[in-house]
Amino acid sequence: MSGDAAPQGLAGASLTAALDSPSIGQDIYALAAEIYPICRSITGQGVRDTLTILQKHAPIVQHEALSGTKVLDWTVPKEWVIRDAYIKNAAGERVVDFRKHNLHVLNYSAPIHAKLALAELKKNIFTLPEQPDLIPYRTSYYAESWGFCMSQNALDALADGEYEVCVDSELKDGSLTYGELIHRGDTDEEVLFSVHTCHPSLANDNCSGMALITHLAKRMAGVKTRHTYRFLYAPGTIGAITWLARNEALTPRIKHGLVVSCVGDPGGFTYKRTRRGDAAIDRIMARLLAQRRANVIAFFPYGYDERQYNAPAYKLDVGLFQRSQFATFPEYHTSADNLDFITPEALAESYRVLVAAIAALETDRRYINLAPKGEPQLGRRGLYGAIGGDKEAYAKNMAMLWVLNLSDGDYSLPDIAERAKLPLETVEQTATLLEQAGLLKPA
Amino acid sequence: MSGDAAPQGLAGASLTAALDSPSIGQDIYALAAEIYPICRSITGQGVRDTLTILQKHAPIVQHEALSGTKVLDWTVPKEWVIRDAYIKNAAGERVVDFRKHNLHVLNYSAPIHAKLALAELKKNIFTLPEQPDLIPYRTSYYAESWGFCMSQNALDALADGEYEVCVDSELKDGSLTYGELIHRGDTDEEVLFSVHTCHPSLANDNCSGMALITHLAKRMAGVKTRHTYRFLYAPGTIGAITWLARNEALTPRIKHGLVVSCVGDPGGFTYKRTRRGDAAIDRIMARLLAQRRANVIAFFPYGYDERQYNAPAYKLDVGLFQRSQFATFPEYHTSADNLDFITPEALAESYRVLVAAIAALETDRRYINLAPKGEPQLGRRGLYGAIGGDKEAYAKNMAMLWVLNLSDGDYSLPDIAERAKLPLETVEQTATLLEQAGLLKPA
Amino acid sequence: MSGDAAPQGLAGASLTAALDSPSIGQDIYALAAEIYPICRSITGQGVRDTLTILQKHAPIVQHEALSGTKVLDWTVPKEWVIRDAYIKNAAGERVVDFRKHNLHVLNYSAPIHAKLALAELKKNIFTLPEQPDLIPYRTSYYAESWGFCMSQNALDALADGEYEVCVDSELKDGSLTYGELIHRGDTDEEVLFSVHTCHPSLANDNCSGMALITHLAKRMAGVKTRHTYRFLYAPGTIGAITWLARNEALTPRIKHGLVVSCVGDPGGFTYKRTRRGDAAIDRIMARLLAQRRANVIAFFPYGYDERQYNAPAYKLDVGLFQRSQFATFPEYHTSADNLDFITPEALAESYRVLVAAIAALETDRRYINLAPKGEPQLGRRGLYGAIGGDKEAYAKNMAMLWVLNLSDGDYSLPDIAERAKLPLETVEQTATLLEQAGLLKPA
Repeated sequence: MSGDAAPQGLAGASLTAALDSPSIGQDIYALAAEIYPICRSITGQGVRDTLTILQKHAPIVQHEALSGTKVLDWTVPKEWVIRDAYIKNAAGERVVDFRKHNLHVLNYSAPIHAKLALAELKKNIFTLPEQPDLIPYRTSYYAESWGFCMSQNALDALADGEYEVCVDSELKDGSLTYGELIHRGDTDEEVLFSVHTCHPSLANDNCSGMALITHLAKRMAGVKTRHTYRFLYAPGTIGAITWLARNEALTPRIKHGLVVSCVGDPGGFTYKRTRRGDAAIDRIMARLLAQRRANVIAFFPYGYDERQYNAPAYKLDVGLFQRSQFATFPEYHTSADNLDFITPEALAESYRVLVAAIAALETDRRYINLAPKGEPQLGRRGLYGAIGGDKEAYAKNMAMLWVLNLSDGDYSLPDIAERAKLPLETVEQTATLLEQAGLLKPA
Repeated sequence: MSGDAAPQGLAGASLTAALDSPSIGQDIYALAAEIYPICRSITGQGVRDTLTILQKHAPIVQHEALSGTKVLDWTVPKEWVIRDAYIKNAAGERVVDFRKHNLHVLNYSAPIHAKLALAELKKNIFTLPEQPDLIPYRTSYYAESWGFCMSQNALDALADGEYEVCVDSELKDGSLTYGELIHRGDTDEEVLFSVHTCHPSLANDNCSGMALITHLAKRMAGVKTRHTYRFLYAPGTIGAITWLARNEALTPRIKHGLVVSCVGDPGGFTYKRTRRGDAAIDRIMARLLAQRRANVIAFFPYGYDERQYNAPAYKLDVGLFQRSQFATFPEYHTSADNLDFITPEALAESYRVLVAAIAALETDRRYINLAPKGEPQLGRRGLYGAIGGDKEAYAKNMAMLWVLNLSDGDYSLPDIAERAKLPLETVEQTATLLEQAGLLKPA
Repeated sequence: MSGDAAPQGLAGASLTAALDSPSIGQDIYALAAEIYPICRSITGQGVRDTLTILQKHAPIVQHEALSGTKVLDWTVPKEWVIRDAYIKNAAGERVVDFRKHNLHVLNYSAPIHAKLALAELKKNIFTLPEQPDLIPYRTSYYAESWGFCMSQNALDALADGEYEVCVDSELKDGSLTYGELIHRGDTDEEVLFSVHTCHPSLANDNCSGMALITHLAKRMAGVKTRHTYRFLYAPGTIGAITWLARNEALTPRIKHGLVVSCVGDPGGFTYKRTRRGDAAIDRIMARLLAQRRANVIAFFPYGYDERQYNAPAYKLDVGLFQRSQFATFPEYHTSADNLDFITPEALAESYRVLVAAIAALETDRRYINLAPKGEPQLGRRGLYGAIGGDKEAYAKNMAMLWVLNLSDGDYSLPDIAERAKLPLETVEQTATLLEQAGLLKPA
C-alpha cells in the first residue's frame, strides 16, 4: 500500500501487511479468469462449479435451498440445466452456438427444439442494434420462455429461410446454491461482503467481485480482527432473499456491509450509500474515496442486493462498492464485459480500498479519557515531544491532545480523525499509546 | 392542467378533473370584476355586499361581531357608513368625487362638512408625488380622522381658494362582518384558506383572492377529500383576530393553511413560509413553485393575516401565497391596482397552483409496507415491467421499489416523491396500485 | 464607540458609556508598557511583581499554591528565582546579558556557572536562523536544563574560544501565583476572562491581554450587570490547572468565557470557537466580528488555556479571542514582540469588541409574550408608528412584531436579532419598551 494515502489504523497497518501482496492483482485476475467461462444462472450447476473453484482458495461453505421452498415473499425456483443451444441453418451449420459463448442462450431459457422460419425465429432473438458487434446478456427468470442472444451483425447476415432451433435445457426440481464463509473476530458484530454469483460469462459483473472477496477471505485467514466478517456468494435477488429468510435472527449482528460488484474495470470508483446515508460505512467509504477518482452517490432501491439488505424490515447498513457504476458503461451486460475489460491493476486497487475499509472498521471504536479534567501531564509520562521545531513531535502532540479532548464516549476514532483532520492511523496509534499509558480505556 | 408539470397525486388527478375548467380564469376574473366597485372597509355594508355576491357561487356563512366586543387584545370597532364624499371648488364642481372612485376617501374616514382654504385642506389630502397620476389607498382605523386621497396632478391643478369639503360618513355601533365556508372532509384535520375582505376598489389586493377561493370552494362542492377545508373571508387583522377569539378551541385542528392575496397580476409567484419554516405546506409550496417564476421567502411577522395565525400562542402552519409580493409592485395600494392589472390567465394559473397544493395535501399520507423483508416478488403479482428497454416500465418499477423501500411510516408520499425525485402523481398511483395488491396499508 | 457598527443592547449602551473612554487605548498601552520589562515565568517573583502593578488599577486578589501541591494530574513545580545570567568572552565582556533582555535566559533555566568552549556552549544556545536579528523565547519547564537564547547574528559574531557561562538562578520550594478578581452581578451565572501571566518581555503575548482585562475590570467597578464576571490571571497550563483543581465546584457556574491574548498587534481579529462550536459566546463573537477583518476558526485542543476549560470533564464554553493568531505572526515568541509591535489603537479596538461582547451577553435573555394570541393592539398603547412613509417607524414596528412573535421562551434577544436581521440594540430597546407596556415578561 506504499504511495497510497488511504487512512489506515494500527490494526490496519498490520492488516495491510498481512493482507497485501505484490501479486494480489494478478492473483485475483487469474481466479476471475478461471471462473469466467462457466455458464451460471440463479440456479444450477454453474454456481456449484464456480464455488468449487473458489473453495480451492478459501473454505466457503456451500448451502442448498430446494426448489419450491418459501423464502420471504418468494419461492425458490426450479433448477436450470443447460446442456447445449444452437441455431442451425439449412446447411446444418451452427450460426449461433452456445458452445462458443454462453451469452447466446437467454439465461434460464426453457427448452425448445423446432424448425422456424427466420421471421418467426426473430421474435425470440435479442440483439443490441446500437452495439451491432456485441452479444447482449438477457435473462428470463420467473416467466418461462425461450430465446437467443446474438450480435445484430450476425443476425443481419442470416439468410431468409428455415432454421433449426434448439435449447437443450431443463427446468427441474433441484436447488438454489449459495456460498458462505465466516471469518470469526473477537466480537459478534459483523461486516458483510456480498457478491452475486448468477451472471454467466461476464468478467467484471461479477467474476471480479467473486474473485476479489475470495482472495480477501483467503488472506484474512488467521488474521485477528475485532469484527466478524461474513462473505456471502449468492445469486442476485433470490439468493439474498433466501439467505435473509434463513438467517433472520442473525441480521441484527450485521453492523456494516458492502455489496461488491464490477470491481475490475479501469474506470473510477462508485460508492452508493446505504438507505440511512450517513452510516459508519458510508462515512468510511466517502473518506477513503475522497482523494480518488470516485463518484459517491445516494441510495436508491435498485441495483444489486443492497436493495434487499436495506429493505425497511432490516435497514442493514450495506452500501454498494463498484468501479464503473452498473448500467453506465458500454460493456455492461454484453459480451464486451470479458477478460480484456478487467485488469490486474484495477482489481488490486479495488482490493486495497476494501482492505483500507476493513482497517477503518476495525478502528471504529471509542475510548474514555481517564484524566478528563484539563490536560493530563504528558511530559511526566514521556509522551510530550521535545523542545523545538520537531514537526513530527508536534503532530504527535496534537494527536494526543485531540484524542484526549474528544474521548468522552461520543467520538469514535474515525470521528476524531475526521474532526482533527488527522490520518486515522495516527489517531489509532495515539489511542493505543494513551491506553498503554493508562490515560484511556475502551468505552 | 395540460402542459403543466406540477406534481399532483391520484386524488389530485381526480380533484383536478373535478376542480378544473377551461373557463376558470374567466370565471374568477368576472367575479373579481363584479365585487371590484364596492367600497369595503374593516366594518360596514361593503363587506356584506361583497359576501352577498360571493354567496351566489358558494354557501358562505356570514357572521357578525358587534362593535365593542372584546376580541383577544382588541375591541371590535364601530361600523363605518360611507354615503358620499367630495371636494367642491368655488364653482360648486366636484374636483374630488367619491362616486368616481372610492379610493378618494380616506378609508374609515370620520365625517366632515366644512369650507376650507386649499392650504388648510391639503393637510388632510394624501397623494403619491412619485406616481403623480395615481390615487393612493390610505386608511385611518383606530385613530379617528378624516381625509381624502387624490392624484398629485389633480391636486396641483387646484386653484387657490376655498373648497367645500364633505365626507358624508358615520361611525356607529354596528358590527364587523366575516364569512366562512366549510368543506367537510373525511377527517377533522383542517386546511385553512384565508382572504382579507377590507380593501375597497383594489383588484389584485384582494378582489383576486376573494374571487379565486370562492370559485375553488364552488368547484370543491361534492368532491370527496380527506382533509376538511375552511374558507375564511375576514377584514385584515381585526377580522382574523375576531375569528381566532371565537374559535380558539378549533385552532389545533388547522394543520395547514394559506393566506391568499394578490393572485391576479401577471408577476411571478411569491410564497412566504410559515414561522416554522419547514412545515408540510412550506415543503409542498416550495416544490410546486420550484419550476415556476417564483420567490420563496422566509417568514416575517408583517404582511397579511399569516401574522395572526403564526402568533406564538397558535403557531399555525399558515403561509402566504401571492403572485407579486405585496408592497413591491408599483400598482400596490394605488388606483392602478384595477381590473386592467389582473388577467384571467394569471388567475387561472394561481388557481391551478392552489389545486395542486390541495392535491399534494390530500396525498400527504403514509403507508406501511406489508412485505418489508427484502423486496416482495412483484413479477408474480404482474406488477413488474416486461423485459427490455421499456422506459415507462422502468420508471414504474423504480416507483414501486421506492414506495416499498420508504413505506416504513416515516415517509409520507410527498416525502417519497422528494427523495426519489419522482412526480408525486406517479408515487400516489404507485401507492394505490401496491395497496390494491395487498403490499401496503395506510399508516 | 461612535462610528462602530457593533451590535449592542440597551444594557450595552449604558455599559459602553460607563466602560468606554477616549483614552482607553493609551491607558491599556501604558499599563502593558509598565509590566513589559518584568521577567515572568510560571512561578516566581515576576508574576507577583506584575500583579502588584495591576492591583494599582483593580482589586485583584493574589493566590499562592505551594510547590509540590497536587493539582489534577499535575504537581505545582518549584519556584524559579532568576538573579542574573550572562555569557562572558575571554576579555570578560558580557556578550549575552540577561540585564539587557530577559529573553536571553532560557525561561525556568536551571543554574549553571562554568567555562565552556564555544562548540560546547552552542549545544545550550537557541537562535532563530531564519530571523537572524531576533532573540527567541524558549522555556524549559518540567525538564530541568539550562540555556541561553540569542540572535543568530550575535552567535555568528562570537569568536572561537572559551566562555564564562552563568545562570544565577534557583529552583526552590516556593509557590505558584495567580490573581483573581470577581465583579459580582445580579446572578451567579459567570463569564470568565482568562489571561496567561507567565511570559516574560513579550508585549503582545501577553502584556496586552493582562493590561486590557485589568482596565476592563477597573471600568466595570460599580457598573451593574446581570452576569458575574471573573477575571483570572494565571500562568499558562499549570495556572489554569491549579485554578480548576481548587474551584471544581464552581466550574458549572461558568456559562461563557474568553481567553484573551495577543490583543495589541495591528492584525485582524481571530476568534477560536469553543469545543461545542455553537455556544452563545461563539455566536456572539461571530456576529461581532462578521463585519471586521476577522478569522473565526474551529476549536482545536492547542493554544492557550481554552484547552483546559474545554477539557471533556468540564466542556466550559470558553473561546479564544486574539488579534493575529498565535504562532502565525513573525514576531511571535521573539524579541520583536515588543512595545513597538502593539498600538493603542489596536488595544482600544480589541477592548471595544470585548465591551460589545459583554453587552451582548448581558442582553442574552428571553422574554415571554403576555399577549401571544395574534398581535396585541399596539396602536391603542401608542406603540404603533403613524400613517405613512416613516422609515424609522416602520423599523420600530417590525422590531415590535418580531420580538412579540418570537418571545415564546425559545428565542433569546440575540436570537431574535439574528433571525430578524435587526441590530441587537433595537431588539433590546424594543423588548424594554414592550416590557414596560406590559406585553412581555422575562422568561
